[in-house]
Amino acid sequence: MDNLQSYCLTTAQNAQAASARLRTSSALQRNNALHNMAKAISSSADLIIQENKKDLENAPKYNLSPAMIDRLTLTQSAIQSIADAVTQIAQQPNPLGKSLQGSILPNGINLQKITVPIGSILIIFESRPNVTADAAALCLKAGNATILRGGKEALHSNTAIANIIQQALKESALDPNTIQLINTTSRDAVKHLLQLDNLIDLCIPRGGESLIRAVVEQSKIPVIKHYTGNCHLYIDKDADPQMAINIAVNAKTHRTGVCNATETILLHKDLIKSGLALKILSALKDKNVELRADQPLQSILTDTTPATDEDYKTEFLDLIVALKTVESTDEAISHINKYSSKHTEAIVTNNIQTANQFTQNIDSANVFINCSTRFSDGGQYGLGAEIGISTDKLHARGPMGAQDLTTYKWIATGNGQIRS
Amino acid sequence: MDNLQSYCLTTAQNAQAASARLRTSSALQRNNALHNMAKAISSSADLIIQENKKDLENAPKYNLSPAMIDRLTLTQSAIQSIADAVTQIAQQPNPLGKSLQGSILPNGINLQKITVPIGSILIIFESRPNVTADAAALCLKAGNATILRGGKEALHSNTAIANIIQQALKESALDPNTIQLINTTSRDAVKHLLQLDNLIDLCIPRGGESLIRAVVEQSKIPVIKHYTGNCHLYIDKDADPQMAINIAVNAKTHRTGVCNATETILLHKDLIKSGLALKILSALKDKNVELRADQPLQSILTDTTPATDEDYKTEFLDLIVALKTVESTDEAISHINKYSSKHTEAIVTNNIQTANQFTQNIDSANVFINCSTRFSDGGQYGLGAEIGISTDKLHARGPMGAQDLTTYKWIATGNGQIRS
Repeated sequence: MDNLQSYCLTTAQNAQAASARLRTSSALQRNNALHNMAKAISSSADLIIQENKKDLENAPKYNLSPAMIDRLTLTQSAIQSIADAVTQIAQQPNPLGKSLQGSILPNGINLQKITVPIGSILIIFESRPNVTADAAALCLKAGNATILRGGKEALHSNTAIANIIQQALKESALDPNTIQLINTTSRDAVKHLLQLDNLIDLCIPRGGESLIRAVVEQSKIPVIKHYTGNCHLYIDKDADPQMAINIAVNAKTHRTGVCNATETILLHKDLIKSGLALKILSALKDKNVELRADQPLQSILTDTTPATDEDYKTEFLDLIVALKTVESTDEAISHINKYSSKHTEAIVTNNIQTANQFTQNIDSANVFINCSTRFSDGGQYGLGAEIGISTDKLHARGPMGAQDLTTYKWIATGNGQIRS
Repeated sequence: MDNLQSYCLTTAQNAQAASARLRTSSALQRNNALHNMAKAISSSADLIIQENKKDLENAPKYNLSPAMIDRLTLTQSAIQSIADAVTQIAQQPNPLGKSLQGSILPNGINLQKITVPIGSILIIFESRPNVTADAAALCLKAGNATILRGGKEALHSNTAIANIIQQALKESALDPNTIQLINTTSRDAVKHLLQLDNLIDLCIPRGGESLIRAVVEQSKIPVIKHYTGNCHLYIDKDADPQMAINIAVNAKTHRTGVCNATETILLHKDLIKSGLALKILSALKDKNVELRADQPLQSILTDTTPATDEDYKTEFLDLIVALKTVESTDEAISHINKYSSKHTEAIVTNNIQTANQFTQNIDSANVFINCSTRFSDGGQYGLGAEIGISTDKLHARGPMGAQDLTTYKWIATGNGQIRS
C-alpha cells in the first residue's frame, strides 16, 4: 500500500469512527457545534480571504473561465453568507429519531421504523469553496461524518475553512474527524476512496456530468447523482395566454445560471395560428434571450437561429433558449422524456386532463403545472437547506435536504416473543 | 456490437418501453394481471414440472449440492405455493399514488410528494425458480418492468414460468415485455446489462456474497444489496433467565437455513458465575446444536469445540453456533459492529439503559430487544411479500416490500406563480 492509499484508508477509518461516536450525540450537541462553526467562519473571514487570494493567484494555471473564477472568489459578504447558511441549518428541525412507521404487531412486539444517520459520506465537489461548509454542515445535522474532496483550484480556501471547522468541532466536544478534508490534489485519492465501501456509506459528487460519470464508473460505494438541469416548459394549446408569457419569461430569464432554469420551451402548433407563439417569442426577445427555433417558429420571427439536436440536449445556463413546436401533448412528453436530465419539467394548461397526462407520463423528479420551473428548490419546498437536487430515483429524488441524509433502523421491542 | 450485446440492449429497451406504458396502468389492471398469472402458473403445473425435470437431470453437470437440488426441485405443492404467493401480492394494498408529504406553500402552490414506479428493474438470482414469479409479481405490483436473470441450473424451469407469465400479461392487456427473462446462460449477458444505466433503473442481485460483490464491482446501475444474515444475540447480565434460554433456542434452532437465524450468541461474563450460561449452552446442546465456544465457555461445558475468528464471521445456516463471553455491553456492541452483516441483532435484558445503549449503537437494519431474531421478516412486520432483506442503508433497509420498489415525484400545481 503506497502513502496515498494508506492516507485515504486512515481518513475513511477516522470517518467511520467519528460516525460511530455521532450515533450517541444529541441534537443539542450537533446544533451547538453548527453554531460554533458559523461563528468561527464569520470571525475568520480575513484569514479565509487571505488563503482564497492564493487560489485566485493560481487560477490562470488551471485555465479557469471567468464564471469559475467568479464562483471561486470569496468576499466578506460571501463568507458571511456561508456562516449564515450554517446557522440556518442549526435552526432547522432535527431529522433524526423520527418514527416513519410503527405499530404493535399482533404478537405484542412494538415495531418502530426510526430515522438514524447514514454513517459516513464522501462529498466530491468542484470549484465552489462555499460547498465545504454547506455540505459538511448538512451532513452533521443528520448525524453523519463527512469526507470532503474539493477541486485543486480551491485547495487553499477549502483547507482554511476545513481547519476552522475542525477547531470549532473540537471546542464543541465533537470528534474533529467528523469533518475531514482530503488534503491532496492527486486524482488517485478519489479512486482509492471509492473502493472503501466497507468504511464509506454514500458518495455525493457535485459538479459537471463528466465528474459524476467518472465517479459512477469507479465507485463501489452507492452514489447519488445530481446531474444537470435540462429543464423543459411545455405551453399547451389550452394555456392561459398571459400566464404562458409570464412563466416562459420567468423560467428562462429570472436567473439563467441555475439548474432549475428552463432550457427548452415546447409550443403546441396551434399557438402559431392563435398568435400566442409570436407573443412568447417576442417577450423572450425583449429580455435579450437568444432564440434557437425549429422551422415553424423561425417562419413567424425572422430574428432566430435554427435549433439543432445538440441544442435540445444542452443546459445553456445562459440567455439562450431552444424552441420547438409539437403536434400534441404526447409529442411534448416524448421529447421531454428523451432529452431531459429528469430534473424539472413544467406545463402551462387550463385543461385538467392534459395536466394529468403530463404529470403521469413525465419521468422527472419535479413535474409542475402552471408555475415556473424556478420553484424547484429545497428552500422553496420548505425543506430547508439542500445538498442538491437529485436526478436519481433511488433513496432521494428532487431537492435533497437533511432528512434525505438519513436512513432508518427497524427497532422491535418484545417481552420474550419467539417464533412458533 | 455482437449478438449478445444487441440482445441485452433490445431487452433493456423493451423493459423501458414497457415501464413507460405501466405508468398509466391502473392498480385494477395490474392486480388483474397478477391474478391471471397466479391462475396460469397453477393450471400449468404439469408443464412446469416437466421442464423442471430437465434441469434436475442436468444438475450433476453443475455439481449442485443436495441443498441446491432441493431448492431447484418443483413439486405440485411447490408450484401451488408460487401461485398462492402471486395471489397474495395481488391482494396487498396499492403502493402507488400515495402522498408521502404535501402542503400548500405560502405562494399558493400545492406541492405533493407522490409515490410512482421506479421504472425497470434487473433481478439477478441463483437456483430458486420460485423467485422468477415472486420477484416479477412484486415488481409489477409497484408498476415496474422486470428483467429476470436466473441461474443456468434452472433455465428450463425459469423459461417455462416466464412464458406462462408473459402469456398471462398478454391476456390481461399488459405489454408482455413487462416481465422478460434473459434466455441465455452466458455470463457476459450480466456484464452488458449492468452498463445500461440509461435504460435500467435498479439492480437487485439475490444470492451469495460473491455474486453480489461481482455485480457491485461491474454495475453502473444502482444496486440494492441483500447480503447474508450473520445475526447476533447478546444475553446481558440483566437478562430474564428463562426468556434468555427460550430466545437463544428459538433464534438458533427454529429454522436454521434462513437469513434471520442467529449465528453467534454473546454472553455477559457474569452469566458464567450465575449459572445461566451453562443452562443456555445445555439447552442448545439438547437441540443438537454444535457449540463453538471461547475459552471461558469451554471451561464450563467440555462438550464444545474452540471458536475461531472464522466462526464469528460465518453464517452457518445449520445447527452450529459460535459463542463468546464479553466483559460488557460495549464489548458486545463492538464485536457485533465488527463481525455482523448488518442484518439483525438482538439483546435480552431487563435493563432499559442497556437496551437503549444497544439499539443506539448497533449499526444494523433490524435491532431487537427481548425477542427472537426470527421475527426479522416482511410478513412478520406486516409489510406483505418481500423481495428480500436489504443490508444496505440507501433507499431500503431491512425487509423490502412492494412499497420499497417505488420512488416518488414532486408534483407542484400552481395558478401562474413565478419567482420574484
